Order: sequence, then C-alpha cells, then structure tokens
Amino acid sequence: MKALSMESKVSRRLTQPTATEVCAHIYAPRLRDFAAGFGYLTDINAAHLLMLHGTGLIPSDTAATLARALLRIEREGADAVPLDPQREDAYFNYEARLMEVAGADAGGRLHVARSRNDILATQDRLRARDAVLVLLDTLADTRGIVLRKAAEHADTVMPGYTHLQAAQPITYGFYLSGIAQAISRDMTRLRHALETLDACPLGAGALAGTAFPIDRSATAAWLGFSGYVDNALDAVASRDFAWEILSAVTIATVTWGRVAQDLFVWATPEFGLIDFPDSVAGTSSIMPQKKNPVALEYLKGKGGHMLGLLTASLAALKGTHFSHSGDGSRETMRGFWEAMVEAQRCAEVLRLVLAHAAPQPDTMLNRARRDFSSATDLADMLVRDAGMSFREAHHVVGAVVREALDRHLPACEIDSAMVAKAALAHTGRTLHLDAEAVAKCLDPIEGVAARTAAGGPAPARVRAQVERQLSSLTHDLEAIATQRAAVATSRDALKAALQALAAAR
Amino acid sequence: MKALSMESKVSRRLTQPTATEVCAHIYAPRLRDFAAGFGYLTDINAAHLLMLHGTGLIPSDTAATLARALLRIEREGADAVPLDPQREDAYFNYEARLMEVAGADAGGRLHVARSRNDILATQDRLRARDAVLVLLDTLADTRGIVLRKAAEHADTVMPGYTHLQAAQPITYGFYLSGIAQAISRDMTRLRHALETLDACPLGAGALAGTAFPIDRSATAAWLGFSGYVDNALDAVASRDFAWEILSAVTIATVTWGRVAQDLFVWATPEFGLIDFPDSVAGTSSIMPQKKNPVALEYLKGKGGHMLGLLTASLAALKGTHFSHSGDGSRETMRGFWEAMVEAQRCAEVLRLVLAHAAPQPDTMLNRARRDFSSATDLADMLVRDAGMSFREAHHVVGAVVREALDRHLPACEIDSAMVAKAALAHTGRTLHLDAEAVAKCLDPIEGVAARTAAGGPAPARVRAQVERQLSSLTHDLEAIATQRAAVATSRDALKAALQALAAAR
Amino acid sequence: MKALSMESKVSRRLTQPTATEVCAHIYAPRLRDFAAGFGYLTDINAAHLLMLHGTGLIPSDTAATLARALLRIEREGADAVPLDPQREDAYFNYEARLMEVAGADAGGRLHVARSRNDILATQDRLRARDAVLVLLDTLADTRGIVLRKAAEHADTVMPGYTHLQAAQPITYGFYLSGIAQAISRDMTRLRHALETLDACPLGAGALAGTAFPIDRSATAAWLGFSGYVDNALDAVASRDFAWEILSAVTIATVTWGRVAQDLFVWATPEFGLIDFPDSVAGTSSIMPQKKNPVALEYLKGKGGHMLGLLTASLAALKGTHFSHSGDGSRETMRGFWEAMVEAQRCAEVLRLVLAHAAPQPDTMLNRARRDFSSATDLADMLVRDAGMSFREAHHVVGAVVREALDRHLPACEIDSAMVAKAALAHTGRTLHLDAEAVAKCLDPIEGVAARTAAGGPAPARVRAQVERQLSSLTHDLEAIATQRAAVATSRDALKAALQALAAAR
Amino acid sequence: MKALSMESKVSRRLTQPTATEVCAHIYAPRLRDFAAGFGYLTDINAAHLLMLHGTGLIPSDTAATLARALLRIEREGADAVPLDPQREDAYFNYEARLMEVAGADAGGRLHVARSRNDILATQDRLRARDAVLVLLDTLADTRGIVLRKAAEHADTVMPGYTHLQAAQPITYGFYLSGIAQAISRDMTRLRHALETLDACPLGAGALAGTAFPIDRSATAAWLGFSGYVDNALDAVASRDFAWEILSAVTIATVTWGRVAQDLFVWATPEFGLIDFPDSVAGTSSIMPQKKNPVALEYLKGKGGHMLGLLTASLAALKGTHFSHSGDGSRETMRGFWEAMVEAQRCAEVLRLVLAHAAPQPDTMLNRARRDFSSATDLADMLVRDAGMSFREAHHVVGAVVREALDRHLPACEIDSAMVAKAALAHTGRTLHLDAEAVAKCLDPIEGVAARTAAGGPAPARVRAQVERQLSSLTHDLEAIATQRAAVATSRDALKAALQALAAAR
Repeated sequence: MKALSMESKVSRRLTQPTATEVCAHIYAPRLRDFAAGFGYLTDINAAHLLMLHGTGLIPSDTAATLARALLRIEREGADAVPLDPQREDAYFNYEARLMEVAGADAGGRLHVARSRNDILATQDRLRARDAVLVLLDTLADTRGIVLRKAAEHADTVMPGYTHLQAAQPITYGFYLSGIAQAISRDMTRLRHALETLDACPLGAGALAGTAFPIDRSATAAWLGFSGYVDNALDAVASRDFAWEILSAVTIATVTWGRVAQDLFVWATPEFGLIDFPDSVAGTSSIMPQKKNPVALEYLKGKGGHMLGLLTASLAALKGTHFSHSGDGSRETMRGFWEAMVEAQRCAEVLRLVLAHAAPQPDTMLNRARRDFSSATDLADMLVRDAGMSFREAHHVVGAVVREALDRHLPACEIDSAMVAKAALAHTGRTLHLDAEAVAKCLDPIEGVAARTAAGGPAPARVRAQVERQLSSLTHDLEAIATQRAAVATSRDALKAALQALAAAR
Repeated sequence: MKALSMESKVSRRLTQPTATEVCAHIYAPRLRDFAAGFGYLTDINAAHLLMLHGTGLIPSDTAATLARALLRIEREGADAVPLDPQREDAYFNYEARLMEVAGADAGGRLHVARSRNDILATQDRLRARDAVLVLLDTLADTRGIVLRKAAEHADTVMPGYTHLQAAQPITYGFYLSGIAQAISRDMTRLRHALETLDACPLGAGALAGTAFPIDRSATAAWLGFSGYVDNALDAVASRDFAWEILSAVTIATVTWGRVAQDLFVWATPEFGLIDFPDSVAGTSSIMPQKKNPVALEYLKGKGGHMLGLLTASLAALKGTHFSHSGDGSRETMRGFWEAMVEAQRCAEVLRLVLAHAAPQPDTMLNRARRDFSSATDLADMLVRDAGMSFREAHHVVGAVVREALDRHLPACEIDSAMVAKAALAHTGRTLHLDAEAVAKCLDPIEGVAARTAAGGPAPARVRAQVERQLSSLTHDLEAIATQRAAVATSRDALKAALQALAAAR
Repeated sequence: MKALSMESKVSRRLTQPTATEVCAHIYAPRLRDFAAGFGYLTDINAAHLLMLHGTGLIPSDTAATLARALLRIEREGADAVPLDPQREDAYFNYEARLMEVAGADAGGRLHVARSRNDILATQDRLRARDAVLVLLDTLADTRGIVLRKAAEHADTVMPGYTHLQAAQPITYGFYLSGIAQAISRDMTRLRHALETLDACPLGAGALAGTAFPIDRSATAAWLGFSGYVDNALDAVASRDFAWEILSAVTIATVTWGRVAQDLFVWATPEFGLIDFPDSVAGTSSIMPQKKNPVALEYLKGKGGHMLGLLTASLAALKGTHFSHSGDGSRETMRGFWEAMVEAQRCAEVLRLVLAHAAPQPDTMLNRARRDFSSATDLADMLVRDAGMSFREAHHVVGAVVREALDRHLPACEIDSAMVAKAALAHTGRTLHLDAEAVAKCLDPIEGVAARTAAGGPAPARVRAQVERQLSSLTHDLEAIATQRAAVATSRDALKAALQALAAAR
Repeated sequence: MKALSMESKVSRRLTQPTATEVCAHIYAPRLRDFAAGFGYLTDINAAHLLMLHGTGLIPSDTAATLARALLRIEREGADAVPLDPQREDAYFNYEARLMEVAGADAGGRLHVARSRNDILATQDRLRARDAVLVLLDTLADTRGIVLRKAAEHADTVMPGYTHLQAAQPITYGFYLSGIAQAISRDMTRLRHALETLDACPLGAGALAGTAFPIDRSATAAWLGFSGYVDNALDAVASRDFAWEILSAVTIATVTWGRVAQDLFVWATPEFGLIDFPDSVAGTSSIMPQKKNPVALEYLKGKGGHMLGLLTASLAALKGTHFSHSGDGSRETMRGFWEAMVEAQRCAEVLRLVLAHAAPQPDTMLNRARRDFSSATDLADMLVRDAGMSFREAHHVVGAVVREALDRHLPACEIDSAMVAKAALAHTGRTLHLDAEAVAKCLDPIEGVAARTAAGGPAPARVRAQVERQLSSLTHDLEAIATQRAAVATSRDALKAALQALAAAR
C-alpha cells in the first residue's frame, strides 16, 4: 500500500489522512475486487457520458475527450489503474485515473448528476445479471444431461429409499427425473430474480435524484435494462434482487447436496448402487485402497457454505437504515459475489457428478429383490384381490416381513403360504393365494411396471415426463438466450456509440 | 400422555412399544400443531375419498360411510380427537379416530393408494397457501396506507440521510414511496412462491406413486391446485416452495426492520422528526419519563428471528437425502410455521407503525435548513452557473462547509462571500455569485422542488410515482382476490360433494 | 385477552391504552412463558426484600407484609396470577398481583432501588443456571453409559471409516470412547459458561445503579451467586453468558448429529453394523416392512434447529445498542429457552440411542475382513519388513488393491504372490514374503491388536483410556454436585429467611 | 494450473487423472492458503522426524538427510514449492517437494506412522493457537486503552440510554468501564478455547493410530502442546476447539458492533455526544459536506459477517460423520481462517475507534440536563423524603414529565410547584418540597455523584472498578505472555534440534 497522503483524499472537508487501520482493513479489501467490477464501471461511465452528451449537459468536445479516455482505460485494462486505498474504493480510483488520462477538468465533469451510491447499485446489478445468466446456462446444461440419462435409465430398477431404508422399487431414471424437476425450479427462481433485478438505479444520485435534467431511460437502455428504478432512495438502499438470488442459490445448493448425499451413500461398497470413475475421486496419503468421494463431499458441504453467506448478508443488513451505508450496501454484498462464484463451481461439479455417476444395474436389481421394498405391493394385492382394508393388509404383510426377518429370508423368498398363515393369524381369514401372483407381486420389475399412476416410476410414465421436461427446458433455453442476446446487443450498441463519440473531433 | 401400549402402534412389524423419550420428545411435540393442520387433513381425506369413489376404487356404501364419518369428525373439531403420541403423528391419530367413527373396516380402506408422505406434503402446501394469502392481504393493506400517506406528505421536506449523516433534502412522502416500492417487491416474491407451490403432491404415495388407477387431476382440482406434482419422488422430497416463502419473508422482515431502525432514531428527541402516539409505546418500571419504542424494537429484532428460522430450516435440510425423511420433511418445516405466524405479526405491527408515525414538519424543515444537506445543490450550482467541473465544485463546497463548521454556522447562514473566498483559494477563480441564488440554493424546499429528474423527490414526481404504484397495487389486489376466490370455490365444491356423498345411502 | 383499559397501564406519562397489535403480538407472547419464570421472580423479590429490610430501606412491618404476600403468591402458583398483556410483561403482572395481595402501598414499596432491567437480567441467569445444571447431569449420565459400553466392546472389531469408505479396522469400543471424549468437552464448555454466568445483576437498576445504599453482595448471596456484576450498564446490557451456553449446546448437538449420522448409515441392512430395538423406531403408514430411524433423524436434524436458534439470537442482538432494549435483552433470549429445552431433549434421545444401539459383531468383523481396511497394515509391513519407503509401499499396495478389485476378490483373499508381483512391477524389487505374515497383516483382529501406539484402538489402550475418562467423569460429577448443592443451599436459606420475616409481626 | 498428468497423482489405486472441475473448483482453492500453513507443515514434519529418529523408526543418516531438506525448504519459503492441484492439497505438494529435495527414498520415509488426517488436524491447532494469541494481545491492548479512558472520563456526565431514549445520567467513564468488562469476558472465552485446543493430534494417523511404536508425547512437546489427544478417532474427527473460538469471536464482534452502534448514533450532529477525527471518517463522491463513519459501519456490519462464518462452519459440519472427511474437516474450517483474519481486523478497528472517540462534555452535560434522565431521581426523592411508595412516586413524576412535555419545558426547568401539583392530583397529598432539593435532584452531576451503590456511575465507584479491572488485565497479560513464551520456547527447541540433526553427518 502506498504511503498515506492527502493528495489522494477526495474531500476537502476532511483534513487528515485516513488512519492506517481504515486503509488496511476496510479500503484495501474493497479494492481486491477491482478487476471484477472494472468492466462494469467502464460501461456505466460510458452510458452516463452518452446520456450527458445526449441531453446537452456536457459539451461535445469534453464528451469526446472523455470517450477517448474511457476507451483507453478499458483497453489498458484493470491492472493499469493504480490503486490507492486512501481513495477509499474502486470508483474513486477509477475517477483518479480518468482525471489523469482525460485531464482534471474533463475528468471532473463526468460525475455530475450521479453519485457513488447509484453507480455502486448499478454495478451490482450488472455484475449479478451476468453471473446469473452464466449460472442459468450451466444449470440448463446439467438439466439436459440429467434428463437424457433419465430416459436412458427408465428401466433400471433399483430400491427407492425413505429414511435411508428400502421403501419401494423405483428406477434410476425415475430418480433422475425427480432431480431434474428440482433443478427446473432452481432455474425458475433465478429467472424471477432477474426480473426483480431488471431496473436501472443510475441517476438516483446519492439518494435524492438530481436537479439536472438527465435522461434515466437512456442510461437504462444503454445498460440493457427494461427501465429504471422509480424511487431514488429505493434505488440506492435496496439490494433485495441480490438476497433473492442468494436465497435461490442457497436453496439450490442445499438440494444438490441432498443428491450428493444419496450418491455418497449409494457409492459405498456396502450399497454398491453407483460407481464413479477415478477422475472424480481423491486418494489417501496413507491408505492405499482409498478412493474418496471428494466431489460429493464438496457438494454436501457447499450448502452449509452458501447458507453461511446468506446469513452473513442478511445479518449484516439487519439493523441498518433504509438508505445507502457501508454496512447496508457494501458489507451485505461482500458474501454475495463469493456465493455466485461458489454456486457456479457447485453447478459445474454437480454436472460432472451426474454425468459420470454410473448406476450398477445388477446390484440395484438384486438389492430391490432381496430387501423388502415390494411389501407395499403385497399389501396392495391383498386389498385388491382379497378384499382386505388397506390397514388390515398392512398388518398382515407386516407380520409376514417380521417372520421373514426372523428366518433371515430375503423378500424374494416370501411365499403364499407365509402370507396365508399371517392372514389367518391376524384377521382370521383363510386366503387362497396364487403362488405365482405372490411371486409376481414381489418382483420389483413387475412392481415398477405396475406403478402407472401419474407421477410414478413405470418406464413409460418416466419417459413421458422426461419429454415434457425437455420441452420445458427448450422453452427456458430460448428465454435465457433471448435475455443474453438483449444484454449483448445493448452492450454492443454502447461500445459502438462510445467509439463514435470518441471519433468525433 | 397416556400409558404406552402396543394397541396404538400401527405396525405389526415392530414388536415393542415406543420408548418414552421418543414419545415425549419427538412424537408429542408433533401433535402440538394438530389443530392447525386438522382442517387440511379433513380436506385431503375428503378429496381422496371423492376420487377413490369416482374411480371406483371404493364402493359407494363404504364411501358414504366414510363421508359421514369425515363430516362428523370435522363437526366435532380437533379437540374431539384423542391424541396419543404412541401413534407417532397427526395422521395416525386422525386415522384412528376415523376407524372409531366409521368402523375399522371402512376406516381402514381410505388409506389405499396414498401414504403419510404425500399427505404431509399436500397438507404443508395447503396450509402454506392460506398463510401466504392472508399475509399478502395485510401487505397490500399496508402498502395502500403507506402510499396514501406518501401522497399526503409529498411536500413535507426533511433531511435525507446516508450513513445516518444528513445528505440531501427529501420529503417524508418520497421516503414512504420508497418503502412502498420495497413492499411491492416483497409481495411479488410471495406471489412467485405461490406459483411454485401450486401443484398437488397427493397420490405420490410414499415416494413411488401407486399401481392403483387413481386420478390425481381430480384430487388436485378438489384441493384447488392447478395440477399435480409430476414426479412422485420430487413430490414427497421437496419443500422448496416453503424455503422460497421463508426466504421471501426473511428478506421482507429484514427490510421492515430497516424502516423501524429509521423511525427508531428519528423518534428520539435528539432527532425529533417523528412522533408516535402513546398507544404504540411502552413504559418503564422505574423511569417515569420513559416512552419506549416497543413496536419498533419488535420490528428491528424480528429480522433476526426470521433469519434464524430460515437458517434452522435449511441447516436441518442440509445433509438429508433427496427423499422423505424425518429431518428432511418434518424438522425442516417446524420453523416454517413459526415464521409464517411471526411474519403475519410483523406485517400487522409494521402497518400499525407506519399508519401512526407522525412526521413533525417544523423540526424536519428546520433540521434540513441547518444541517448541510443542501451542499450538493451548491456544488451543482457551481457546475451549472460557474462552469466548474463537478470535482472542482465539490472541493470548493467542501472547504465552505469546513469553514462553516469551524465557525459554528448552520448551513442556512452560508453566504456568497464564503463561497467566493473558497473558490478563489481552491481554484484561483474569482466568482461573482448572486447572493439570492446562493440562498435559494441552500433552501431545502427549493432543493427538493428542483429535483425533478425521474425518481427524485420533487413533489409532482412523488405524486406521479404514488399514482403508478396505486395502480400496480390495484392490479395485485385483483390477482390475489382471484386466487383466494379460486381456493374458496374449490373448497366449497369439495364440501358440497362430500355432503352429497354422505347423503347418498 | 381482557378488554384494554388504562387501569392496567403502569405509567402516568402515557395517556392512551396500548394498541391491540402491540398487546397481541408483542406483550401476550411474552406472557406465555410466565410459569417458567414465576419461581425465579419470587426468589428475586424475596432476595430484594430481605436485603431492603436488612439495610433498613424498608421498615419491618412493611417487610413482613410483603414477605407474607410473596409466600402466598408462591403457594398459589403461577396460574393464580391474572395475566393482562396491557401490563406489558411478567414483572408488571406479578407486581400488580403483589399490590392486590399486600396492598397498594406495601406492594408499591418493593420496587425501590431496582428496575425491570436488572430483574430480567437476574431472572435470565437463574433460569439458565438451572437448565445448564440439569443438562450437565444428563450428559454426565450419557457419558458414563458410553464409557461402560466402550469397555464392554473394546474387542468388537469393525471397519473404521473416513469419507464413508472403509479405512482401517477399529473397535466399537474405540469408537464409543472417541464419542465420550467429545461429550466431555461439551460438558467443559457448559461448565465454563456457568462461570461466566456466576455474577448477580440485581441492583444494577435500569442501567445506572441507584443512589439508595443497597447491599448487592447480600442479594447475590441469597440468589446463590459468588458475587455481583461490577458495572451496572454491563449488567443489564449483556447476555453473553447465554450466547456462550447457546454456542456450547449448538456445537454439542451438531456433534451428536454426526454420531447419529454414523448410526443412521450403519443401521441400514446394507451396512448392517448396528441394530436398534423396535422401541426407538418408527413405522410407515403404507410400507409394512418399514422400521424408520426416527430417533436418529431427530438427532441429525436438531443441529440445524439449534444453529437456527443461535443465529436468531445473535442476529437479533446485532445492531442493537450496548444497553437494555427490547431487541437486545428480550428478543435475543427468546430462542435461548427453546434451545435449552431442545438441548435437554437431544441429550436424552442421545442417551437412549447410545444405550440401545446394538453392535452386530459378526457382520462388523466380516466386513472388516472383506473390505480393504487392512491395506495400510500391509503397506506398513512392507516398510517394516521389506525396507521400502512408506510412499513406495503405498504405491505397491495400491496396485495390489487395484488388482483385487478387478478380480472381485475381498481383502482377505489377497496373498503374498499378488504383493510380490506388484512390488516387482512398481519397484523392480523381488520380495520374499511370508504367506502367513501377509495373511496376519490382513486380519483386522491382528491389525487392531497391533495398534498399540497412544490413542489407538488396541483393546488394552481403549480400556486404559476409558479408565482415565471415568476418573475424569467422577471429578466432573463431584464438581457439578457441589454447584447444585450450593444453589440448593442458598435457595433453602432464602426460603427460610423469607418465612422468618413473614412470621415476624 | 499445469496440464493434468498422472505423474502428480499419489495413488496407484486410481487410474485416471483428476477431472478439471475437481482440480479447479476443489483442489486449487485449497492451495490458495498454502503460504499460511507452510511454516506449520514444516514444524510438524520436523517434530515427526525428530520423534521417528528418537524412537529409532528412521535411521540417523536418513534422518539427517530429511532434516537438511526440511531446513532448505523452509529457507526457500512457500513460494519455492511448485503447486499442482492434481496433488490435491498442501501436504502432497509439500511431500512432492520434499522427495525432490531429499530424494524419493528418504522423502518417502517421513510419512510412516501418520496420515494427512492427523497432520491437518495438528496444523489447524497450531495455526489457530497463534491467531488466538495475537488476537488476545490486541484485545488486552484495547482493554487497557478503554480502561485508561474510563478513568479519565469518570466525571464526564452524559445521558445514559435504554431503548435509545434518555434514561438516567451516567458518565462516559462508566460507559467505557462497562465495555471493558465485556471485552474481558471475550478474552476469557478465547483463553478457555486455548485450553480445549491444547492437545496434539499428531500420531492419530488416518483415524486409528498406528502399529509403529511412536512417541506421541515427544511430538506433542516439540509442538508446544501440553499433551496429545487421547483417542485417535476424536483427534481427526473433531474441530470443536475451532467452533469454540469461532463462537467466541462471533459473540465478541456482535458486542463490539453494539458499541459501534452507540457511537454511530452519538456521533450524529443531532446527538452530538461524540466526535471523531477525520482520519477515521470517509467522504462522499457527491456531497461535499459528508464525513461518513466508515469505521463504525465496518464494526456494525462485521458481526453479521462473523455470524455467517459461524453458520457456514457448523452447517457444513452438520450431517457429516464423526470421522475425517472433506466436508467435516476441511469445508468446516474454510470460514474459520477468514473469521480469524476478520476478528483481528475488527479488534484493531475497535481499538482505533475507542482510542479516538472524543466525548463532547458540554453537549453531554447539556443534554443530560434538558432531557428527563433525572426523573427517576425525583421519584426516588419522593420515596425517601415524602414517604411515598415507589409506584406512587413513579406515577407522580410521570405526570410531572407529561406536563413539562406539554409545556415544552426541559427537565431542568421543572420546579417544586409542578411536583406538588402532580402529587396533589394523583395522591391527594400536599407536599412541602424544598425548591433547592428538587433542583439538586434534577441536576445530573448530583445524580451521578449520588449513585454510589456498587456497580453505579459515581466517579469514585468507577475509578475503583477500573482499578480492579486493570489488575485483572495485568493478570491476564501475564498468563498470555506465559503461553506465548511456552510456544516460542518449544518452537526454538524444535528448530535447534532440527539443525543439530541436520548437522549430524
């Protein structure tokens, strides 16, 4: 950090250099993110300049000088801007550079009719918008992969679990199709948040707008927004678009962690339902046999990380005033960027994991045959074919299972005699059950095939569901592409206009 | 708690009564909420019954018996159902009562083709839907009040603060209009969450649907949903509609707490900008002069409470499997209901506070005159009238303020000579400033009136903004009314159909 | 709630009845906890009365009247005190009752030289102290059970897992002994928090002490504290004893949830290492075979609940002033009491679970034989007997495991030829390994027996460790007993003195 | 990141290079912290080497070679170690460097009888210990400054606030003395956490100790621990020392944020009680008059940040197994280091703020005279001198205040006639009050001076309290110095022994 000096201090109202602790602990950390925001700051400056020029608030020659300076600064890149913590933040350091390049007079004319507060709010939205659009792309990609795998494994029978106990037979395709549904809602939430975000704060000034006759619609359009934030105080005070995004990604990563938890247990040799290629596993420094599920542990843990970032943001916001402030506008956003980076990483690791998880059909089927996940089908049969009430049938089959466990029999060895015996003991009825019907009933392949009610795992049902989801995904992809294109178009227009202005002499 | 017995145990697979600790610490607390869910359980049973009857899965006489039993149970109310923790949860206690009233055989026939898992998921959505609709009503009401007050106070000039330091003059109406914008986004998030919620899980069974040819569209319609959840596993595993609502109310209450923080400080005698009637204040047991802002402290603190509930829910969910489980499906919802109760309370206290906060126009104006919130206007004038760059003007005015502070002058006593002196010292320029122009510039009423750029506090701007918001509110109110009506209509139809079925002999 | 009236309003400075929302949403909820705090309020009143009488600040006859009134109120119990939310909180309702019983004049004399603020702070400490002492008892009990089981199972060999992959053989006793260590630290943290708590706030008044010549040492002693809080502002502003306890129980319950997670997976038929009696399991409404691990899911989920309560408390506190306030002193404590109740429940369920978890020695040993948890021992042997570097040995054994997996051999069928082959391929060395030595090395019983280094699972090591822990437990139990006795003694003395005072006419 | 290759992969059991996403998103971020842990890794290697040599597990020549290599690596510094994410983490990269420097054979021999798991656990404790000791120094320093200022301002009368409403007169010294008490408890918690931390995990291996006859007491002593962790599983599974520290710093920073909140409001011109030098203030880009309290906003916000880090850590831990794992051992510690950095920054900014906050005695006294903070004293006088019950006196004074407010009189203009009038109206009594006594009673200087009861703000009381605290601080400083010295001594011994070993040829 360079030696403290008054030169870099913007205000003439303050008469002392900033304390070392403030520079080192508050301002310097703010500047660490300079490169990430640099492009957005340039765009904001460009949009503001074009608007000031368009409304006549700045004369053409000054405007051209500023345009050339902005282009040069952008060309030279973030690293060419000298950063001095005494200048407090990214904006003031950028402005100092601008005054160097464009001259103090021209450089000092760009900040009319605006404030750091609305610039910061605008920059936050621009940067968040890009991050969300990238994340949406990755999620759409992941969802597509999951859906294709779901169709592929629509017949791969496996035990379905509740409470981590075998419950009823399902298929791996059915499981994946459920996951895809969850991811589609994750995407919807992000798209809703983009709607919340879609209003430009620029021109709100410090909190009270401005008396200069600016054109906020123009800056909004240059920056790819549908309109501007209608109340200047709200514009600088509010970051709820960010909490909405942050909530959405936290909910998403916690859900993805649940998927990772499934695979984490299923990938143990004890369960043996899933295998992973070595490329997603870690080693042990000491145990030569180890193949550790690092990617899954990463996904499991990240929900906690994201929840912490959400907590940090909202707890920092809590107790602030409804206005611009250091804690309410900066500290609350600190964790947000970290969250967007981590959410992107998570989404990529999730994609990797789901693309590479290799179901083990033999083990899956074998487990589904031997555990008691078909017991409900047996009870259903007693309802359907023996006229029992469901509760009665439940009791009878419960007793059958009890006996099988006591005799160490797998489910597939339950026979009609055992059922008849239990029925007699518990209901007094004599049943005449067809042995084959009982066997069929206990066959998980039959069980899955029979579950044809809406939402169930019958292969045709799952395939139809996947089709519906793929069509919804196509729709989402188009919408996202449209949004990205709109952003890109406005950005191209902005760059072109800036260059045209720079070229005017 | 009644003596432990095997009688109340549903399963015949388990052969021991449940341990005291499990009953007392896990099951008994689940039953505390029985009354809150009772009506929904009845509706679910009614819808399932009508569907089973409609599809022929249950014969007419049994159906009529069950319909009569359900009507009787509903009529007698939640308190008439004996609750035994040995039966684990609300559903099993309800079923036990149903078997008492309808007879074991008929009572035991209603649970075909479903499970507690899908029932619980459905009940959670029904209950959450009602809670959100009530909350939306209160928020719409509050927003209306705030907007009407905003129009009323469009001319009430006060200092605007950033960093709790006087920044620029605004009006109380402008402030309120900003708050109303924030509340409108709170409402939008809740309405989006209602869309997420709008799909019926019933018929998903334990996690794998059913082989019985049920009609899920029918139950969905009886219960007022637009459709059903398309994947049975997703239906029982997912509660993200709830996290989405919980995030929305957490974001909302933290924002409301910021408003409370503003009023909390403004209501001190030291600031003196706001007064409250005694009816919203608390006393001291010892200090006879005290008038404590209990309602504001409540609102300030609640953001923390809600954030804790959100953390509890997502942290409980984290690390569970993507399926039904005690921690993933029940523990994660525990805090949600508490959050909905508290959010409703918060919204009502916020409405009370905003309806009764009495701005003190004289103090407000006086403060705006004496503090330095018009300094930016002075700098703007130097840009506009003296051709300075903004940064130059900022320096000059900074020096003027410095001098005023050193001489203990309020802002309204700054004169053109001071400005000219500072300009000379800092820029070398000789300014010829009109004394009246300087005075006008420092007058906050003029300053506010001049801020006519979009989003600013100029009274006409604020009034127009309020108009736009009122029209958006009207639109929202209609949409909410439509949703409530749809829910009510389907519920009436359900009740009528159940009675018709009960009447059939 | 009774009709609003000014009669119940304490202050004459305020001239309106409290608004319905404030009564219903803020004051009424405060009173829900009245019974839980009632006894402590009585004790505080008694201690204050005895001190006022002792210092001559209250004459004997008034003191006797008040003593009799307090005894009567205590005898009649919390339910006999009419609760009116207009009176704001427990204290004012208690005082109103006191004025009814003792007469307005005498009743109005007890509140000299104190405030609700110091009373509330004192009550919080008294109640927290009792809750912690009860929890410590349960934890000590649990720790004793775990240690006795650890000794019992010091020879029960099982696979040890890292990353949920079999790592190295351990024993169930070794596992339990590790858990006991964690519980002992949970206890230490709670005991440290009791030290933080051990100072009496009474006499701090509203925040600034009092001009009456009170004797704070006396009230502290009557209430079983070692001394008083030395700064009156700190006394009413601080609840860090509570955050310290809350952090300790959150850390504890998250740890217990990890134990539950182990048992949750180990209790699946797929792992089969642990069985539970039916008494701690739940059923399914639909799947007759289910035996759901409700107690384990409860423990897994509770860490999330507690973390939410900790977040709620600290987030509510965040942004408050360092003084007494509604958010800083009440809202922040709301979740604390819930946390203490849940922590107690958790501790009891943990005790139940650990007391009843039944290790399955045959399956455990069989798994340890077949999985590759002895691979490190094989590598160690190559270091010891074949002079390889550890990294070299690690590579060789890694290749051996690779081959065994490819050939679907369990670990126990690895032979010396496979090792020699891999050694030759990877190091170029020719090994002459004793077949028996290799077999011994792969035997988990031998492996465990050999791990005699400090902290390892060799049975003698574990037994010695358990002995050390039991002796530390005895020490802890004595210390807790001493603390409980001190509290009980002071409370008995307080009651006796109050009765003596009441008897004096 | 260098091109992926199998060369850097440690395990021969895995046959594919690690996926790009795993390297980029999981392993590369782990290495970012390499420099921070480098010194500790060297110390651990040195301690392990000395022990292996001491027990004869490694021959002298190999030991000397390794010692020289370690010294060279340490001398060349962290930057000289090539980092390859394919190697997963810091340890494997360090080991790779060691094998380069010492040769593969010698380098491969150091990892006998240990694992990354115990190394990581040990490193975490060493690093945390240093961070806590540095933080304790800063806190002790801050506490000393606060106490000296407290003594200095023991007579600086100001209003004391509850609910941000003037409550009773205090002094600034009394306020600071309360803060110092809170900081002393923050220190105690950290010192308790150091006790929890004080046990060495090294030698616990992966989770199950080792069969090599190592000497864990020796490594513990070389690394400055009092002993070793007694159960190997507990040693690698537990990081509760870290949660304990993290809880302590979270509680601390939330408390410091409350102090910042006080100063934030008191520093407004509206309150005017505190002034800050320009060196701790920030500027505005647009408002020339602004002097923004950046340091205070930083402190206010940081409690939220820390709470988020605590939540992240415990939520990541929640649901893991009680063993070593990526989420349980690494992810949970990620935020911890960030928290220690931020806690240190916070402590330094707090010290800056408290050292530079300049109380404004005139404004303070003037406010205390005019607001109604002496009203309790007036009530107390009525109790003492007019024989009223406290509740009666409270009512009378409440009415007096009401009248003063209605007449816009400051407290200092209340006279005996007003009191007499209110007494007559509310109690029917005729009072004969001495006008001077009333005036004295309303004088805050007198009020403060009279509050001589223990814990109160009477200057002599505060000075005595400060003395007690300074003596306790001295005691703490000595204890911390002793701990630091012990750590330093063992580290010097370790370095010396390593050099001696290296010198042996």
